[in-house]
Amino acid sequence: MHIEIQRKSETSLSNQIFQSIVDHIRSGLLQEGSQLPSVRELSKELGVSLVTVVKAYKELEKNNFTTSIQGKGTFINIEETATKETKKEEPPFNWQLSIQDYLPRAQFSRFHYVSDEIQLSSSMIDPGLLPNRYLEQEIHKMLLENPRILSQYSEVQGDLKLREAMSQYLKQFEIPTTPDNLLITNGSQQGLDLVARTFVGPGDVVVMESPTYPGAIDIFRGRGATIITVPVDGDGMKVDILQNLCDKYKPKIIYTIPTFQNPTGAVMTQKRRRKLLNIAKSIQSIIVEDDPWSEIYFDKKPPAPIKSMDYYGHVIYLKGLSKTLAPSCRIGILSASGSVFNRLLAAKSNADLGSPLLTQKSLLPFITSNKMIDHLKKLRTALKLRRDMAIDLLLKYAPEEISWMIPNGGLNIWISLPVWIDTNQLLIEARRNHVTFLPGSACYPVEQEKYHLRLSFSYMSEQQLQLGIRTMCNIFNAEITSKKKNSNMPYF
Amino acid sequence: MHIEIQRKSETSLSNQIFQSIVDHIRSGLLQEGSQLPSVRELSKELGVSLVTVVKAYKELEKNNFTTSIQGKGTFINIEETATKETKKEEPPFNWQLSIQDYLPRAQFSRFHYVSDEIQLSSSMIDPGLLPNRYLEQEIHKMLLENPRILSQYSEVQGDLKLREAMSQYLKQFEIPTTPDNLLITNGSQQGLDLVARTFVGPGDVVVMESPTYPGAIDIFRGRGATIITVPVDGDGMKVDILQNLCDKYKPKIIYTIPTFQNPTGAVMTQKRRRKLLNIAKSIQSIIVEDDPWSEIYFDKKPPAPIKSMDYYGHVIYLKGLSKTLAPSCRIGILSASGSVFNRLLAAKSNADLGSPLLTQKSLLPFITSNKMIDHLKKLRTALKLRRDMAIDLLLKYAPEEISWMIPNGGLNIWISLPVWIDTNQLLIEARRNHVTFLPGSACYPVEQEKYHLRLSFSYMSEQQLQLGIRTMCNIFNAEITSKKKNSNMPYF
Repeated sequence: MHIEIQRKSETSLSNQIFQSIVDHIRSGLLQEGSQLPSVRELSKELGVSLVTVVKAYKELEKNNFTTSIQGKGTFINIEETATKETKKEEPPFNWQLSIQDYLPRAQFSRFHYVSDEIQLSSSMIDPGLLPNRYLEQEIHKMLLENPRILSQYSEVQGDLKLREAMSQYLKQFEIPTTPDNLLITNGSQQGLDLVARTFVGPGDVVVMESPTYPGAIDIFRGRGATIITVPVDGDGMKVDILQNLCDKYKPKIIYTIPTFQNPTGAVMTQKRRRKLLNIAKSIQSIIVEDDPWSEIYFDKKPPAPIKSMDYYGHVIYLKGLSKTLAPSCRIGILSASGSVFNRLLAAKSNADLGSPLLTQKSLLPFITSNKMIDHLKKLRTALKLRRDMAIDLLLKYAPEEISWMIPNGGLNIWISLPVWIDTNQLLIEARRNHVTFLPGSACYPVEQEKYHLRLSFSYMSEQQLQLGIRTMCNIFNAEITSKKKNSNMPYF
Repeated sequence: MHIEIQRKSETSLSNQIFQSIVDHIRSGLLQEGSQLPSVRELSKELGVSLVTVVKAYKELEKNNFTTSIQGKGTFINIEETATKETKKEEPPFNWQLSIQDYLPRAQFSRFHYVSDEIQLSSSMIDPGLLPNRYLEQEIHKMLLENPRILSQYSEVQGDLKLREAMSQYLKQFEIPTTPDNLLITNGSQQGLDLVARTFVGPGDVVVMESPTYPGAIDIFRGRGATIITVPVDGDGMKVDILQNLCDKYKPKIIYTIPTFQNPTGAVMTQKRRRKLLNIAKSIQSIIVEDDPWSEIYFDKKPPAPIKSMDYYGHVIYLKGLSKTLAPSCRIGILSASGSVFNRLLAAKSNADLGSPLLTQKSLLPFITSNKMIDHLKKLRTALKLRRDMAIDLLLKYAPEEISWMIPNGGLNIWISLPVWIDTNQLLIEARRNHVTFLPGSACYPVEQEKYHLRLSFSYMSEQQLQLGIRTMCNIFNAEITSKKKNSNMPYF
């Protein structure tokens, strides 16, 4: 087990230990029935007092994550929000537990598709809205004409034809790039991972928005980064706060999702974008601009990416490409310049020697045709309808204690409940009703706020979306009513 | 620039600095015209004496890697073995050079396919020997029946149906596994990378064969491992030497390619396999068994993988799957048990959230049919013919000073020249004649032997193979004759 302690952090040591063990359980790294190290062992390993470890262990037990058995030790309970398919550790493998690893958490590794669930947790697009049939025909034609594609490797950097097409595609976002400055990745998740493995090491400071995309937290944590956070409001990352933090911490990386931020949906203003770039320039930092869905806008087009203003090579721009088209291809692109780009290319070579050629060639005919433009137009219309439907349902059925931001693009609605509601608990109840969502706590790199949740309106059919949101509203109502009834706290 | 100094190493500090900078140049991380830090700067950064850095810089200049300009500094020359497409650094990006990275080297990142070259450097299989047309039909059928596959994500662990098929496939190697213990990766390169990122950190000891697969060296170096090496003879890794090293160093990971070792072609004996497993058990280490081509045997079947004897979960088994079938799919599998497996799954989630579903589903029909067995049979016959042809040509045309091991499987022949020949220099001459091979120095993790080279007989057509080997023999002859003529050393 790998627990990283940051002595300079504002979070107490016992809380850091508590949080790290919870992360291990959530990631499936510590499974039901596994034994924790003894208090004495852990205090020695981490160089902290016995009292600190005892406090963390008590908190785990209080929150039902563990059970202590007198004279035997502390054991992991079944976590109710997790899938229950976890197997018991086979005895012959017990020796493995003493091998130290470098994985603080990986929350998505246990993602399982459960077919009868209404997944409002998935930031994905309804397969019914994607051009499967058309793509299938294009793939057939492509392979029929040139079956040798199947026996060829891609260049490490990615297929040149696809890079040419993407360099063309990025023009709509005013991003000046050439095929030489593009790298094809396995989704933008890998792009982000390449950035982290290349530039982030133990103790390097990374700025993240709070809340942010959980997968990014896992990646930077995994490199041992010191993460500092900047809050997000309706206009995106609060760049004034960033300025103060930068003076103090000189971050190496600033990670941002400026357009339809995940999970909040916020769009960073043009003014803040420019200011952010200036800050990065002044302290010689790298901005990692994650842009998963700026194509999916519902009202007016969002401001151009920060990358469009980047003359000095401060911005590494990431875009998922297959999400809006063919998720089974898992293709992302990364745009960067100068030696920063060369180093990322070298990291890609170490990571997997290049993405599959088949998936790259499969998307090429569609992307280079006019069909892509038409498809995106239709997608915007269809998803706008679902957003409107979701908001209408919330207005109609959600209790008045609940608030949300209406997103102008992207796939998610960020919902805030009263502070005395824990959405992790709500998820247990929702699952019993075959509905899932993303509990907000997963989105906080440091201090967690537990009373938010992310609802994705893009993956389920309209009918299921309607059923899912009504179910959730019922759960909200029941929980708020019951909490009010059973509590002595003053209502507000 | 990231230079890692190991003070306990048997290699001198100046040699380590020299080697690291050469690695950076070969990897394209330092490009033509880039300026090296001043002697003073580097000595301060690394905490070594000025004399040490001066010695390293002199060695670089002597070997033609750099040029010093009085009063200006030291600059990288064009490396003649590299492709000459490298661009000059644009001035606005100069600030980037001060950003520290974590990449010691990535030798394969600059791999470019040059169509008029006879690539004896590529351990790949001639596209003419792969079932492209048949696969193309299967893919068409699969997508026609179920176009929605295009819009779906794979599970992080990999498609269940493919894992079931692979669990069945592995039975021929006597590997007892279930779909639950298998992870689908982007080629075995990613499998290896997942192992390294999960279990290897700065200073952890990794044992490697010497020589070994260059991509593996890059990966473990990238994690800051302390690499110790064990020589390989005709019976594989010299396990007696390993035993002594293990007593002293307690390695966390032992990396081996027991069957048709890359690059030597050696097959580890059954006895050594058992002994290796016992050593790992006794010191609680993990064996990483890389098995790229045990299907490709020419005479008798090689011994079963070490994994087949692994009851206690000491072996992480890696197999490239698409190399012998459809390289454009880039699919590998990893088999492991217990918490070691769970942790690798978590790492896969962080790395890319799962491999593309399209490539996984594309191979499924072929693998589960009898066609796979027939195909492998044919492949063995065809490649045996090429091996025989290559050996015949060497016997006929190579000078007598040259020796090689006849491989009983795999794709490579390991050729040893007289110790006073540097195959890096030969490569320059070979390229002038449009032939490439892998210089042996790339395969040594620590002390390099420069007088070997790896020749792959599997990628080129028979005609090109013939031409390529005859060209190489001419180069061998010319080089040996010229060295003998111009040297005062006694001939032997």
